[in-house]
Amino acid sequence: MIGLIAAVLTTSAFVPQVLKTWKSKDVEGLSLTMYSVFFVGIVLWLVYGILIESIAVILANVVTAILAFILVFFKLKYKTKK
Amino acid sequence: MIGLIAAVLTTSAFVPQVLKTWKSKDVEGLSLTMYSVFFVGIVLWLVYGILIESIAVILANVVTAILAFILVFFKLKYKTKK
Repeated sequence: MIGLIAAVLTTSAFVPQVLKTWKSKDVEGLSLTMYSVFFVGIVLWLVYGILIESIAVILANVVTAILAFILVFFKLKYKTKK
Repeated sequence: MIGLIAAVLTTSAFVPQVLKTWKSKDVEGLSLTMYSVFFVGIVLWLVYGILIESIAVILANVVTAILAFILVFFKLKYKTKK
């Protein structure tokens, strides 16, 4: 049960960041390295979930991977050209 | 093995964000809601790791909890008074 709540929290946590960035277009403070490394890590968790055939791990990481990918996309798109 | 690499990546991913925020003090683009919810979720993963007695889950989430806590602290500390 705790694992499920933890998964829901750590997955849904990225929604407010996606909404904030989408509205503000302010990506200066976001670290591209973080979201890229995080995205790769989440994809590996997804592969891990498939290997151990755990629907919960697969679902949580599919959602997180999409949210992390959106943030990487926003960072590249709204990055002020220096 | 994949789980270990995934854990290392999703944990270490937060280090570049902590360093970037520490240097730039730019927290405007960071979502306080995200890091607070994420922190609570990570603490629950930590409890989960203790319950299932998994050193890997415990270690990964202790480090991530510390990094997430630092980002919540930075966000509160460097938040421009509006």
